[in-house]
Amino acid sequence: MPFLRNAWYAAGWRQEIDDKPVARRILDEPIVIYKGADGAPIALADRCAHRFAPLSLGKIDGDSITCPYHGLTFGRDGRCIRNPHGKGQITSSMSVPAFPTRVQNGMIWIWMGDKEKATQCAPLAYDFLDDEGFTIIHGYLHVQAHYELVTDNLLDLSHAEYLHPFIAPPGSYANVQYKAVEKDGRVTAYHSMPNAENTPLFKLLMDESVRRIDGRAHMHWEAPANMMLDTGAIPVDPPDAASASTPQTHLLTPETENSTHYFWSFARDRMRNDASVSEMLREGITNAFVNEDEPMVRAIHERMGGKALFDLSPALLPMDEAAVRARRVLARRIAEEQSAGA
Amino acid sequence: MPFLRNAWYAAGWRQEIDDKPVARRILDEPIVIYKGADGAPIALADRCAHRFAPLSLGKIDGDSITCPYHGLTFGRDGRCIRNPHGKGQITSSMSVPAFPTRVQNGMIWIWMGDKEKATQCAPLAYDFLDDEGFTIIHGYLHVQAHYELVTDNLLDLSHAEYLHPFIAPPGSYANVQYKAVEKDGRVTAYHSMPNAENTPLFKLLMDESVRRIDGRAHMHWEAPANMMLDTGAIPVDPPDAASASTPQTHLLTPETENSTHYFWSFARDRMRNDASVSEMLREGITNAFVNEDEPMVRAIHERMGGKALFDLSPALLPMDEAAVRARRVLARRIAEEQSAGA
Amino acid sequence: MPFLRNAWYAAGWRQEIDDKPVARRILDEPIVIYKGADGAPIALADRCAHRFAPLSLGKIDGDSITCPYHGLTFGRDGRCIRNPHGKGQITSSMSVPAFPTRVQNGMIWIWMGDKEKATQCAPLAYDFLDDEGFTIIHGYLHVQAHYELVTDNLLDLSHAEYLHPFIAPPGSYANVQYKAVEKDGRVTAYHSMPNAENTPLFKLLMDESVRRIDGRAHMHWEAPANMMLDTGAIPVDPPDAASASTPQTHLLTPETENSTHYFWSFARDRMRNDASVSEMLREGITNAFVNEDEPMVRAIHERMGGKALFDLSPALLPMDEAAVRARRVLARRIAEEQSAGA
Repeated sequence: MPFLRNAWYAAGWRQEIDDKPVARRILDEPIVIYKGADGAPIALADRCAHRFAPLSLGKIDGDSITCPYHGLTFGRDGRCIRNPHGKGQITSSMSVPAFPTRVQNGMIWIWMGDKEKATQCAPLAYDFLDDEGFTIIHGYLHVQAHYELVTDNLLDLSHAEYLHPFIAPPGSYANVQYKAVEKDGRVTAYHSMPNAENTPLFKLLMDESVRRIDGRAHMHWEAPANMMLDTGAIPVDPPDAASASTPQTHLLTPETENSTHYFWSFARDRMRNDASVSEMLREGITNAFVNEDEPMVRAIHERMGGKALFDLSPALLPMDEAAVRARRVLARRIAEEQSAGA
Repeated sequence: MPFLRNAWYAAGWRQEIDDKPVARRILDEPIVIYKGADGAPIALADRCAHRFAPLSLGKIDGDSITCPYHGLTFGRDGRCIRNPHGKGQITSSMSVPAFPTRVQNGMIWIWMGDKEKATQCAPLAYDFLDDEGFTIIHGYLHVQAHYELVTDNLLDLSHAEYLHPFIAPPGSYANVQYKAVEKDGRVTAYHSMPNAENTPLFKLLMDESVRRIDGRAHMHWEAPANMMLDTGAIPVDPPDAASASTPQTHLLTPETENSTHYFWSFARDRMRNDASVSEMLREGITNAFVNEDEPMVRAIHERMGGKALFDLSPALLPMDEAAVRARRVLARRIAEEQSAGA
Repeated sequence: MPFLRNAWYAAGWRQEIDDKPVARRILDEPIVIYKGADGAPIALADRCAHRFAPLSLGKIDGDSITCPYHGLTFGRDGRCIRNPHGKGQITSSMSVPAFPTRVQNGMIWIWMGDKEKATQCAPLAYDFLDDEGFTIIHGYLHVQAHYELVTDNLLDLSHAEYLHPFIAPPGSYANVQYKAVEKDGRVTAYHSMPNAENTPLFKLLMDESVRRIDGRAHMHWEAPANMMLDTGAIPVDPPDAASASTPQTHLLTPETENSTHYFWSFARDRMRNDASVSEMLREGITNAFVNEDEPMVRAIHERMGGKALFDLSPALLPMDEAAVRARRVLARRIAEEQSAGA
């Protein structure tokens, strides 16, 4: 299946670009991202128009980047602005593709499709990432698997009990009320845990008196593969304790057909100034993914041998509904884009 | 050339399966092997029916194995016997392929073809492995080459003088009487060394007075790639010393088109209780294969570039007869199987 | 594009072959090179006629090499001269391809095409390598890129200012007078630096009083990918100091479509007996190539994704003229060879 092109993709955390260009393959194209004079990110094809050298090994000066091989300099729109050779002639062939970018909620977004269409829609908004009521940690993970397998993983939290026994003890999913809802191309997997025993995570964040909670973990998916996880706990016993909320983003961007960039963030409105909590959360998230989820989706990717999921006739279970709906929405979007382009 | 499917393949030594599942690719399919409640091995496709997760990372309980990703449990026939999700509904699509197995002579055998036919034949019998008159050592080797190249290697012992000079000193093959015999699909390469100088191996095993022996090394091949090597020495000078016998199995199972599982065993009826002799033999066999045979067949595999042997017009030598006959028997068996299946 | 076959290719430095055979893939064929009884190199296909074992793991005796697997012995013309098996019969099928070789200017040359044609032309002559007026250093580098990308790199020295700032300081190319000349299939990129500031290299080699020089770096290319670089400096200020000359060879031989053997030499007629100068030059050449050029051409090769340069519509700059001419001469030669063979 081709990639969806007319969409904003997460390309990096704002902090990733500083003085040096960042090379990142996106939708199987080499991209260089660097910070322009006004601080906004510039994204160009990471392949000089002359001899296809990686611009990401070159030097930044204001809005421009200079090729490390023969010194052609390109501006933020990808056009050559300086040719140090011969009479310095600049022709229209001396251009590299430029890609629209946005910075929103601390994330750099890139548009890999028809440039005209980029102005017609905005990146997905995750405004809690700018909310001063939250402490945020975030990170980057690399996955050696097709991005939809990671979407499948995230839209179905029932796997936690099996794959992450330290996070979700055996039996914990039995109390989950699951509902998949698709609306206007947005798919949500609602996971509600009413009047449940408090969990290790929320024991850490809430008052120690809280024994039972109304828990929730609602995963909101939007094409191509961007998810917001609304996790939180409202105390039931005792009912008057303060609630806790830990909204998260899980943003997936295809690197190639066989690998995925995974940008995650985790916000909390409790224990906000305790750096050791941040550290513990970062370690827990990273370890669970690197040691448990990533090897699993990688093994699945290998076992699928490049075939499409539905061509392999998978048995489907109730909690697959959200992931299946998301796959269908995305397939429809891609088919529409392909037929419009034809 | 496709693999022969209707045949018993060596899948592992009985000791390999214990509390944990073993993952092993066989005929290019991922297989999980584990010990059932009665101790007999169970072999299933190592790919859950739901999301294609590797069952080999899951948990065994009696005859069943539980998927590590979402907890579906499969029985020894590959049918799902527990679905912990929703109402626990089990449908016929929730099954994974199951493969017949046998344990015989300490080896686990697997049948990768038409199940009906599995009951019509038994794995090859190597009863000396169960004979209390022998001390047995055995092992596993991995070969980065097509399995028929290993068959070629084993059916022609003339290579020892060149590739294993410490085992077979220069000139040693000059006294070998070679004869290839094909009968009922069984190919034997007879290597007889009448009235020969005693060899390092048999000097180790026999009475030190033995100077000359009638030696033999008869390799019996059966499709697809299973060999029994009947090696032994009968004293000639002095004639009344005790003889020695060291029968072996060399069982090859394709992992992929480009790699091979190699299960070997070595029995001896002399020096039976001397552990240092076992250790010396194990080291000698492993070193010769890992450092001499494996690099050689791997280099040959690479140089053949995926082409079939006879398409490359090899020059053939007298001692190739057994290997060529074995290749032809196997090719005929595969062609018959393919045309029967068509 | 296929390789040009009817041409002499650099195969190794004479010093590389001694008592042991050398295995080297050339034009994507495995070749074994060894020293014959008269000291001249012999080149055979590194693949026994019998079972395709690498002869390069075998033993040399005079002009012959013996296969390490089953002991067939081949002579300098590739014919089997000894079969130790059976009655020792030798048939015409027991031959391996033999390739004409020459030693000239310390370099072993190999002819991979039509043998008849090998006698009609000689390898390119680089006689300064035999000139006692020069001290020579030479080396071997391996490049993970198509050989024409290395040709491009060498025929255009303007890249030095960008890729090798320690060798060519910023701005140094501004004074270069560039001219590309094609004559009789030979392409030369003339780089003249009249009345230029002395360079670090020639400061090292010439009298320390020399402040200004007439510099030159003329790269002479001949198909398929052999270059001689005529570098030198003639003092301008003061005019009566001794000049310096540092002629070089840069000989490229395709290993595969994706990798290249690079044999370089560097001669000097000044500071000839100072071993520390040799060492400094060797380190400088190796470091610049290994750390700067090789990663660059490798990155370019990857970004080109197996496509031909002109199919990717590169922007061309004035100093590309020589490289473009060389590519066209080579393409024409290959097309002629292909149509003659058809």
